[in-house]
Amino acid sequence: LRNGLPEVIYAAGKSPEHTSEIFARMAATGIDVLATRADEATAAAVLAATPTAKYHQQARAITLRQSPPAAPHGHVAVLCAGTSDLPAAEEAAITAELFGAKVTRLYDVGVAGIHRLLAQRDILATANAVIVCAGMEGALPSVVGGLVAVPVIAVPTSVGYGASFSGAAALLGMLNSCSPNVCVVNIDNGFGAAYTATMIARASHR
Amino acid sequence: LRNGLPEVIYAAGKSPEHTSEIFARMAATGIDVLATRADEATAAAVLAATPTAKYHQQARAITLRQSPPAAPHGHVAVLCAGTSDLPAAEEAAITAELFGAKVTRLYDVGVAGIHRLLAQRDILATANAVIVCAGMEGALPSVVGGLVAVPVIAVPTSVGYGASFSGAAALLGMLNSCSPNVCVVNIDNGFGAAYTATMIARASHR
Amino acid sequence: LRNGLPEVIYAAGKSPEHTSEIFARMAATGIDVLATRADEATAAAVLAATPTAKYHQQARAITLRQSPPAAPHGHVAVLCAGTSDLPAAEEAAITAELFGAKVTRLYDVGVAGIHRLLAQRDILATANAVIVCAGMEGALPSVVGGLVAVPVIAVPTSVGYGASFSGAAALLGMLNSCSPNVCVVNIDNGFGAAYTATMIARASHR
Amino acid sequence: LRNGLPEVIYAAGKSPEHTSEIFARMAATGIDVLATRADEATAAAVLAATPTAKYHQQARAITLRQSPPAAPHGHVAVLCAGTSDLPAAEEAAITAELFGAKVTRLYDVGVAGIHRLLAQRDILATANAVIVCAGMEGALPSVVGGLVAVPVIAVPTSVGYGASFSGAAALLGMLNSCSPNVCVVNIDNGFGAAYTATMIARASHR
Amino acid sequence: LRNGLPEVIYAAGKSPEHTSEIFARMAATGIDVLATRADEATAAAVLAATPTAKYHQQARAITLRQSPPAAPHGHVAVLCAGTSDLPAAEEAAITAELFGAKVTRLYDVGVAGIHRLLAQRDILATANAVIVCAGMEGALPSVVGGLVAVPVIAVPTSVGYGASFSGAAALLGMLNSCSPNVCVVNIDNGFGAAYTATMIARASHR
Amino acid sequence: LRNGLPEVIYAAGKSPEHTSEIFARMAATGIDVLATRADEATAAAVLAATPTAKYHQQARAITLRQSPPAAPHGHVAVLCAGTSDLPAAEEAAITAELFGAKVTRLYDVGVAGIHRLLAQRDILATANAVIVCAGMEGALPSVVGGLVAVPVIAVPTSVGYGASFSGAAALLGMLNSCSPNVCVVNIDNGFGAAYTATMIARASHR
Amino acid sequence: LRNGLPEVIYAAGKSPEHTSEIFARMAATGIDVLATRADEATAAAVLAATPTAKYHQQARAITLRQSPPAAPHGHVAVLCAGTSDLPAAEEAAITAELFGAKVTRLYDVGVAGIHRLLAQRDILATANAVIVCAGMEGALPSVVGGLVAVPVIAVPTSVGYGASFSGAAALLGMLNSCSPNVCVVNIDNGFGAAYTATMIARASHR
Amino acid sequence: LRNGLPEVIYAAGKSPEHTSEIFARMAATGIDVLATRADEATAAAVLAATPTAKYHQQARAITLRQSPPAAPHGHVAVLCAGTSDLPAAEEAAITAELFGAKVTRLYDVGVAGIHRLLAQRDILATANAVIVCAGMEGALPSVVGGLVAVPVIAVPTSVGYGASFSGAAALLGMLNSCSPNVCVVNIDNGFGAAYTATMIARASHR
Ligand SMILES: Nc1ncnc2c1ncn2[C@@H]1O[C@H](COP(=O)(O)O)[C@@H](O)[C@H]1O
Ligand SMILES: Nc1ncnc2c1ncn2[C@@H]1O[C@H](COP(=O)(O)O)[C@@H](O)[C@H]1O
Ligand SMILES: Nc1ncnc2c1ncn2[C@@H]1O[C@H](COP(=O)(O)O)[C@@H](O)[C@H]1O
Ligand SMILES: Nc1ncnc2c1ncn2[C@@H]1O[C@H](COP(=O)(O)O)[C@@H](O)[C@H]1O
Ligand SMILES: [Mg+2]
Ligand SMILES: [Mg+2]
Ligand SMILES: [Mg+2]
Ligand SMILES: [Mg+2]
Ligand SMILES: [Mg+2]
Ligand SMILES: [Mg+2]
Ligand SMILES: [Mg+2]
Ligand SMILES: [Mg+2]
Repeated sequence: LRNGLPEVIYAAGKSPEHTSEIFARMAATGIDVLATRADEATAAAVLAATPTAKYHQQARAITLRQSPPAAPHGHVAVLCAGTSDLPAAEEAAITAELFGAKVTRLYDVGVAGIHRLLAQRDILATANAVIVCAGMEGALPSVVGGLVAVPVIAVPTSVGYGASFSGAAALLGMLNSCSPNVCVVNIDNGFGAAYTATMIARASHR
Repeated sequence: LRNGLPEVIYAAGKSPEHTSEIFARMAATGIDVLATRADEATAAAVLAATPTAKYHQQARAITLRQSPPAAPHGHVAVLCAGTSDLPAAEEAAITAELFGAKVTRLYDVGVAGIHRLLAQRDILATANAVIVCAGMEGALPSVVGGLVAVPVIAVPTSVGYGASFSGAAALLGMLNSCSPNVCVVNIDNGFGAAYTATMIARASHR
Repeated sequence: LRNGLPEVIYAAGKSPEHTSEIFARMAATGIDVLATRADEATAAAVLAATPTAKYHQQARAITLRQSPPAAPHGHVAVLCAGTSDLPAAEEAAITAELFGAKVTRLYDVGVAGIHRLLAQRDILATANAVIVCAGMEGALPSVVGGLVAVPVIAVPTSVGYGASFSGAAALLGMLNSCSPNVCVVNIDNGFGAAYTATMIARASHR
Repeated sequence: LRNGLPEVIYAAGKSPEHTSEIFARMAATGIDVLATRADEATAAAVLAATPTAKYHQQARAITLRQSPPAAPHGHVAVLCAGTSDLPAAEEAAITAELFGAKVTRLYDVGVAGIHRLLAQRDILATANAVIVCAGMEGALPSVVGGLVAVPVIAVPTSVGYGASFSGAAALLGMLNSCSPNVCVVNIDNGFGAAYTATMIARASHR
Repeated sequence: LRNGLPEVIYAAGKSPEHTSEIFARMAATGIDVLATRADEATAAAVLAATPTAKYHQQARAITLRQSPPAAPHGHVAVLCAGTSDLPAAEEAAITAELFGAKVTRLYDVGVAGIHRLLAQRDILATANAVIVCAGMEGALPSVVGGLVAVPVIAVPTSVGYGASFSGAAALLGMLNSCSPNVCVVNIDNGFGAAYTATMIARASHR
Repeated sequence: LRNGLPEVIYAAGKSPEHTSEIFARMAATGIDVLATRADEATAAAVLAATPTAKYHQQARAITLRQSPPAAPHGHVAVLCAGTSDLPAAEEAAITAELFGAKVTRLYDVGVAGIHRLLAQRDILATANAVIVCAGMEGALPSVVGGLVAVPVIAVPTSVGYGASFSGAAALLGMLNSCSPNVCVVNIDNGFGAAYTATMIARASHR
Repeated sequence: LRNGLPEVIYAAGKSPEHTSEIFARMAATGIDVLATRADEATAAAVLAATPTAKYHQQARAITLRQSPPAAPHGHVAVLCAGTSDLPAAEEAAITAELFGAKVTRLYDVGVAGIHRLLAQRDILATANAVIVCAGMEGALPSVVGGLVAVPVIAVPTSVGYGASFSGAAALLGMLNSCSPNVCVVNIDNGFGAAYTATMIARASHR
Repeated sequence: LRNGLPEVIYAAGKSPEHTSEIFARMAATGIDVLATRADEATAAAVLAATPTAKYHQQARAITLRQSPPAAPHGHVAVLCAGTSDLPAAEEAAITAELFGAKVTRLYDVGVAGIHRLLAQRDILATANAVIVCAGMEGALPSVVGGLVAVPVIAVPTSVGYGASFSGAAALLGMLNSCSPNVCVVNIDNGFGAAYTATMIARASHR
């Protein structure tokens, strides 16, 4: 197994039966399993076949933890601005937790009310890596990048309308961040952000 | 004369002689005159013909004030993040001053170092309208919009490289601002921002 | 409360129950409340819980006025060209009214029949701020900008087909307006336009 | 010769010598000749070899009239908003004249000052086809389309900056015109507009 | 009535009842009426209220002819490449017919089988204006433009997949046509093409 | 050596000295050598160091043939529409010749004068692979694809202005070709087209 | 019949009845027939009328083989990275088989696990042409291009989310391939890729 | 000083004098200093004023090391495909070295010759973070991501022509990477990549 991380299934575009079957096959090997982009029907199919799995509705993710309990490997903070960024943020948080990190969620900290973010500086300062999910103008990672001394993984979300062009505005904003510790993953890719953030947190923790 | 504002010449794409001649013709009528996007050669030609005019190098603007001195009509704050946004910011500031506003420049307040901006909250709070020039990710107007209770005119600048696409990233970010008091003008259009901001400041001042 | 304006809920992407619950909680504080982007189901839920609220179908907005009656704070004109721009125009008009402005609606004034617009010049001239909603080529704000001496907030709408690219054509047109008193908000953002226009009208009225 | 029109050389990307040689060869056959996109150096080379040719600097065009004088075949109006659209407008006007049309130039009629356009309604009404060159927001063709009962050929120009994207904003605006008698040619293509307009004027004149 | 053409209703985005009511009101004045972009439900509503109207399914158009029979005013050819371009082509053909032109349909003449087009050269040569509808690469107008001596109105269609980007590829191709007698309308805008083509045919016919 | 083809140097962005040095080093091994995108200065440097090399100005290519003379391996036709496509067409032709193919150049066959192309059908029919270079609307490959029974490699060129967007319009047109035997390479990539076409011609010839 | 290939129907946008009728008419002539982009309903209609036809669900294709059995004409390899690229890959494979090629499917060979691809080098080396279907970053064709000495036809697929922009990212990647034997067809165009690949394989086999 | 890293000057758009003056001022404080995007003229000015600084021509960077020698903090590998990606790769390498990391350069490992990359697997496996610079199709990070168990920071470069759109193709490819440990910075942003990679390497090293 590459770097001790769980197996992952990308359920989008797979039938519930197909996902359920792959999930059960992986589960049988005794490892931890994650399925992302799983809708309700997929969750029902997977949990019917693998009752020990758990569905996280907002994250659209299914997890199965089979590894022995362990102290968390490092600390990842997950931030977002508003309720509409929750699916990406929760995909990131659930992934990072299954991958063994301690996760702190900071979910009401948009830039138009900057003091809510500043009020969280102390907890932010203890994270080994920070994930910031933001739609619309995608300004949050730049502000956060200036407040911490660890890598910030920015996740543009497809939240917004009109000139947000389904997340392209946020993506471009983040790529042009004036904070040099910001790097970027695909629109709505909470999973990928957590994968990299967990690697960093784990290395920092060693 | 429409709403008591000076006459304005857009010098880009005009020969120095052409701009100089229009400028002189307007000056002869006794009113205030502004030429924007004027390079050194244009400035030389204009000042040769109209020695009372003044060239503002960073703003690439030429002004001629002929109206009698008057108390300022309202207060406009002009913000930008770094030295590269100065041409747009100065175009805005010079325009607003010629149009009769008191102008406060706040020029080193990028979002990656948020405390420099917060340190200016008191002065910001006294402006009747705020102009925010920003390139790269264009995040500053959203933060400012959350700090003031007056309109914020956002000016995306063509500053940046790569995925800034000559200001398009900043433009899209600003259009998607989560602060509802933000509205946007064309990339690098400091003049247009000042025109509107001055109208607002003037009305607020009455 | 920031600058004496009502609380606002953005209902898009929220469940009817979620919106209804937030609405009721805000209503209980005694202030005015606005929910935008509310569909019929959301309206039904909100009005069941808060019977004194009112649904404005074309605007897709729900309002609750609890503040004491007062003379309007300034005058906002809302213009659009045809029936398809009505959702954005009505979102702007309802918002401005709830925020305390007098609103004049001028709704059949497209540029292809310029005399209908010119026939309204007298009433236009009395507005403190003008909102212009237009889809397709988005030409109306430039013409209006030339007719008035106050700020024009342009709202591109997603009306059109083919090369309108869901409002992008109108947006680009408005950003390039040759009238310097035009500034722009996001596609279909009648709410944001009204928020800024009301600030201007209010300041002008003082 | 296809439809009795002159031979045309597109000089962009050709060396002065190459253009001069083609021009002279065509001239030798006794027909009318037009070269478009000709810079000063090309003009010098062509006029050296063909002294009876004429250079039109603003239009960047070289013409040679050898056909016997004749009454014009129909009437084409060429409109533009400001001085920066002149190259496209003059390319159109010079082309239409060489192709035998009577040409009326209306060059200071932008939409932000609509009365200048309306003052020309009588002369506009006598044209058999109208060419409208406009950069920035490209709003002029829609207004003109509503004023005349003949085809309007819209020429977006590359005039503008920032979000004009070298004429793309004007192009999109024109394609979305709400006046149904508007059709569009490539950015800066005054020649193509005149070619089609002359065909229409000629047919109308028969 | 502007230039003797029928009244036109754009039914997209209007309810069947709304369209039916406007249609009936116009019909009552005794003139010819056209509704475009009308689906089956709209057609049912309109024909229930105005039984003398006629629905053209492929064109998605409803026509009502009330003017006295007359000889056609000029000749318009409508071309397209394949069955998928039929909606735009028929919208153009039905519009041109109602507006009084003789219409020749040439519907199986794509550029990948160039001889089918060449076999129609004689009939093409008799048209006063040509409309060419094409999706995918949009190459047909250029070829047709080289075969006729009258204006060609090109209609890009939204037919295609992948890199056709809903008609944008065809649109760009047509705008870059190397035939100078080609001009372009919006994607799928068969109506606008017919409006202009009929004007040309009518003028040619006088 | 991979598949018996010469070594290739991409000279763009390399200094004349650097290209000359690599060229000489390869030449010393006795094989055939090709440098593409070589300007005059690079050619001078290469020919000074390797006097047996040959510069092809229009193709911007330098060739060195050291392999023994051989009968051509298959037949490649290279087509283009006008003089401005010559750099790409010649890059393709020179490359294919050095790689051992017989090359037929057909260079004045644009779609706006379709009979010039049809007049070459007999020679076209003998090619094992066809390369078609075209800018502007990029329509030529579709027409050619319908005339031959072999693969057509389409090369969009950066020729054109305005809405050609430096070759993007031609590229999109070619990708949407309705002839199924058309495939596409990068804008101006005559070299890549020749590489693939030569492979096909060689295989056909065996 | 052009180059001995079957007749092909593009079923997208056609009614099941229309496709079924065309299919039956072609079948009656005794030739091989292919329908692409056929959904279940279309398949049902076609098989009801032509029971000897066969539906390939994953490929969304219907085939009818009526030609006498024959040894395959050349060898085409079809590669893809994951399960989501299967529709395009199977469309290519089914088409190539019907057109007479031997087809080798290599379907689990994405670049993030490069050793699975390298393990197939021997079989890859025997193909006369290679088709590579890939979505997301579209990197596979470049790697494959470096491993084989025959043309690689790259098919970008619309698989992915966010910044994949429905296949545009993969398309751009493939057009910029640093392997010179790669050429590209439209997004999801497995059919076109197979058409060209079969031509190459057939020529190589002669 | 934020996280013990040197001060950095972005010299693009600053005059040589301005950069030199800032550099000298920082140098006087005794810390390490880095200037990026410095051309020859800027380097001359800086070295004249600060003779202990060093110019790295390929990286376009100026460094001044004043901190006492120390064992490297972690190991960063910097990869690129060809000579044209060197400016971005060297900017990354020089930055990481100044920031205290051990840097391994692997510069001739493009995906079209995959074995050169595979030959370096052992050294790659020892890095704490990997930076991959690639232009054109940007495929290298995905392949590398599959070979290592640490974060990969992908830097799209503006290398390429035509459909590379100045690095946009590579950027999109990297954002869609199928390797989940890949994250992305702005086009040509070697500095930002090194900043983040150094943070990771340092944390891993603790
Ligand atoms: N939400 C996601 N976004 C991007 N990649 C994902 C996501 N979820 C899973 N993956 C990747 O997809 C792979 C599994 O794809 P599959 O084999 O199609 O289920 C995993 O190894 C992950 O690297
Ligand atoms: N139609 C709208 N467009 C843009 N922003 C809006 C709109 N309606 C409300 N908002 C903003 O959204 C905020 C409420 O968002 P939420 O807390 O998600 O309901 C308000 O404070 C407004 O600033
Ligand atoms: N300014 C222009 N824009 C577009 N096409 C033009 C222009 N000038 C000339 N042409 C066309 O280019 C053709 C001549 O091209 P060439 O043979 O390259 O000189 C003429 O027949 C015209 O159709
Ligand atoms: N004009 C061109 N366009 C695209 N690729 C090219 C071109 N010329 C050469 N190449 C490729 O570039 C490689 C040489 O690159 P380099 O080592 O940088 O000189 C060759 O193997 C070719 O595959
Ligand atoms: Mg960064
Ligand atoms: Mg707003
Ligand atoms: Mg403005
Ligand atoms: Mg029209
Ligand atoms: Mg034309
Ligand atoms: Mg094809
Ligand atoms: Mg290639
Ligand atoms: Mg990732």
